[in-house]
Amino acid sequence: MTRLLKKPRHYKEAHRQNIINLSLIAPSSMLHNFKFFIDDLDMITFNNLNQKLIDAEYAVRGKIVTRAQELEKTGKKITYCNIGNPHAFAQKPLSYVREVLSVLEFPDLLERDLTNLFHSDSIERARYILNQIPEGVGAYSASAGVEFVREAVAKFIATRDNIPTNHDRIILTDGASKAAQSVIAAIIKNQNDGLMVPVPQYPMYSAALTLAGGQSIGYYLDEENHWQLNEESLLDSYNTARLNKLNPVAVTVINPGNPTGAVLSYENIKMIINFARQHNLAILADEVYQENIYNKAGKFHSFAKVMHDMQVSDVSLFSFHSMSKGFYGECGHRSGYLEVRNVPDDVFEQFVKFQSINLCANVVGQIATYLMVSPPQQNEASYSLYIQERSAILEDLKEKAHILGDELNKIEGISVNIPEGAMYAFVKLNFPPAKLNPSLGATVDERYCMALLEDTGLCVIPGTGFGQLPNTWHFRTTFLPPRNQIVELVAQLAQFHKKYVAQL
Amino acid sequence: MTRLLKKPRHYKEAHRQNIINLSLIAPSSMLHNFKFFIDDLDMITFNNLNQKLIDAEYAVRGKIVTRAQELEKTGKKITYCNIGNPHAFAQKPLSYVREVLSVLEFPDLLERDLTNLFHSDSIERARYILNQIPEGVGAYSASAGVEFVREAVAKFIATRDNIPTNHDRIILTDGASKAAQSVIAAIIKNQNDGLMVPVPQYPMYSAALTLAGGQSIGYYLDEENHWQLNEESLLDSYNTARLNKLNPVAVTVINPGNPTGAVLSYENIKMIINFARQHNLAILADEVYQENIYNKAGKFHSFAKVMHDMQVSDVSLFSFHSMSKGFYGECGHRSGYLEVRNVPDDVFEQFVKFQSINLCANVVGQIATYLMVSPPQQNEASYSLYIQERSAILEDLKEKAHILGDELNKIEGISVNIPEGAMYAFVKLNFPPAKLNPSLGATVDERYCMALLEDTGLCVIPGTGFGQLPNTWHFRTTFLPPRNQIVELVAQLAQFHKKYVAQL
Repeated sequence: MTRLLKKPRHYKEAHRQNIINLSLIAPSSMLHNFKFFIDDLDMITFNNLNQKLIDAEYAVRGKIVTRAQELEKTGKKITYCNIGNPHAFAQKPLSYVREVLSVLEFPDLLERDLTNLFHSDSIERARYILNQIPEGVGAYSASAGVEFVREAVAKFIATRDNIPTNHDRIILTDGASKAAQSVIAAIIKNQNDGLMVPVPQYPMYSAALTLAGGQSIGYYLDEENHWQLNEESLLDSYNTARLNKLNPVAVTVINPGNPTGAVLSYENIKMIINFARQHNLAILADEVYQENIYNKAGKFHSFAKVMHDMQVSDVSLFSFHSMSKGFYGECGHRSGYLEVRNVPDDVFEQFVKFQSINLCANVVGQIATYLMVSPPQQNEASYSLYIQERSAILEDLKEKAHILGDELNKIEGISVNIPEGAMYAFVKLNFPPAKLNPSLGATVDERYCMALLEDTGLCVIPGTGFGQLPNTWHFRTTFLPPRNQIVELVAQLAQFHKKYVAQL
Repeated sequence: MTRLLKKPRHYKEAHRQNIINLSLIAPSSMLHNFKFFIDDLDMITFNNLNQKLIDAEYAVRGKIVTRAQELEKTGKKITYCNIGNPHAFAQKPLSYVREVLSVLEFPDLLERDLTNLFHSDSIERARYILNQIPEGVGAYSASAGVEFVREAVAKFIATRDNIPTNHDRIILTDGASKAAQSVIAAIIKNQNDGLMVPVPQYPMYSAALTLAGGQSIGYYLDEENHWQLNEESLLDSYNTARLNKLNPVAVTVINPGNPTGAVLSYENIKMIINFARQHNLAILADEVYQENIYNKAGKFHSFAKVMHDMQVSDVSLFSFHSMSKGFYGECGHRSGYLEVRNVPDDVFEQFVKFQSINLCANVVGQIATYLMVSPPQQNEASYSLYIQERSAILEDLKEKAHILGDELNKIEGISVNIPEGAMYAFVKLNFPPAKLNPSLGATVDERYCMALLEDTGLCVIPGTGFGQLPNTWHFRTTFLPPRNQIVELVAQLAQFHKKYVAQL
């Protein structure tokens, strides 16, 4: 301890002058006869935690999932339809993507004969990537992401929509969730600021808002009209918020919809852009399901494209995409991007700074994003396999969307808008109202989903976790299990539902 | 647009009753004659951004790095000593780690003959992992991380320190930065709460604190005593903060030190634990450099171990580790963990919930953490290569730490504590005080580092970015460049320094 006996008097003065973020004013003489209040509690306890964290709720991984995991440990077979996690249902990753990533993890392979192991274009692609980043996937990238990947993303958007796109307005992120959270953290200034979120919504939005200290301003989606947005509902929600002295700064739209499975029409998107413009709102466009469209007439229209067609350049747009969904389902790679339009340079710089505090998104995920936006070309060796794998997954999802929807609609007391996109159905439970007992603690749909889980092992999320019109009850389910399993699950559900309603 | 003509009157009432997070009280009749104030600004502008984001500063990727990138684009050769990014200096990843990850990315390989491509134990390890997670690395894991990896981390800590360790107090994170940020977000309740951070500190801490709305309460490290902590300095910093009505909730310690390169003695850690206990502070122990120890007498002592030896069980401890540092240098994989001790269950649950809002850490990074804590065993095929690669990297770093330190200390006007650990030296610039002109905008060290960059292409970070005693000036540099390059860089620096001081 001799090292610590020295008494550097200059610290005292320095703490006074220089403690970071503090303007210290107390004269040091006050130190001698000052008593501090000390908590009795030694450890960090629940009451010492940030209230915003305690208040944040993310139902998709909430109570019901915890209970499902408990049941699973006792040997019960659980079908996890709570979350869009395709590989968990044995959906195979695309070979092309994984071949390239496999080589990138171990570039020594490039010195060997790989003829019977990888497609020739996968090997070439890996060489090309390592030429761009000789340091490989183990080095930090620039904060906004690897430059050539950002360029490839810009080219992807420009080609998809036939609109000019600037790679210097793209940030590569650890999944789309992180992209959305960074926008929320940046544009919510105080507790009066709010973000308009759909009801039902994907609860990551309300959770991120709660953490950021802002308000969720819910606007109702129109269940009777295929869950499209409705101008009257937007306006009413906006007006009500203003009346309550809140400041709506942006509107979030999820298209294709989570949890609704809806695909927004071109006209609907136009209406939203006009609404945002009129009320000085930025738009957060969650477009992670853009490849998941199952309706014959349906087509994905990006907000960027519609905004460009409308020649609107004064509405800030933040759009998110991800490799976790689509036909890739690469959730575990946490791969995604944020594209920003109509913001000044100094605003974009703040977004990059935000990213820099975490150094950068995981680089394997960044490269995965590159592979998502740069698929094999027609003349390349892995093209036919790529097309075959892609079509098989999308066709399968499409069929399952219809099977699930059709079968559910046959059950008395249950109805659903057949999903046109994404991976979810938001299923309506039509209980006889007189039979409900709201005094049982959990909400009606929470009790229903818990009983369903205990009875059948089917894990779905109550509508309460997403929001719904008062006195309506829903649950969200994915349609990711294999086809035959879906038919079986719906049969079990039908049986359960009848039994459950009878004993209400 | 016919779809939108329907007018569902029930929305209005529902918005009133049910907007998420709002208790709405305005009667709907008020809506008719109410005028709203609308900003003139249509887009999101700098003034619309969260002030906490604008205030956050992360010097390691700040102005000087931006300027370095600009210069690089004009053809100037830049040596990036601003950041501990070993692979960027062509440090090769460990073969064992990358072989396993390569197979995991493309498990189809396991059906082929891989004899001449991978070590037999790497293949077996990949099989073992896929047996644990049959869904592979493309599926979301549980929020806290893959269970068998958490168990392996617990075993690693228990073996390292010979202390009991609970895998259910471990969360796998996207690098240690995310781990630290989640703790800060959880324990900072309001703007009066503060975290004691070392000065100099790693600026991720102050940036995360600013974003979380809390205060950085700096305590000075003792440069004259090998950058150890000093009880008087801790106490003075604490007292000053309390006098200013701040509530210090925890103390951060970085050991081995960033940017100092110091390794804390056992006695020093004991002093810190006693201090934390006495003042009801939690401890954030940033231990990511635990494998980077270069001093013969030096030894890494974890806070968990010392606390266990002291039989202290009432001080909450959050410790971070990462695969970005050590001899792995796998920064791009964003691989890390948080270990929590001495908190109740309900507190730990909130940490898991926080993680769940981002779903989970990237799964490749989680598996990389598994490989970090489960290296090849002596009887396994890749063991000797593993030992050889590990020793080469650590020996090289050790030599470079000494070369850099010795050579720098030869320069007149420059002095440095020779790094005993980590990857950095915090170099003191002893300018003749009369010659300084503080009215030039940037601080003295900022101007110095910028001039050094322009002159030599050497990119280092001014001490101002980390904090330093008033009227002292430093810069942080890594010692990651190859040996011969380090000698050359120091020679260039010596020349520059002489020239620069002469013209002050």
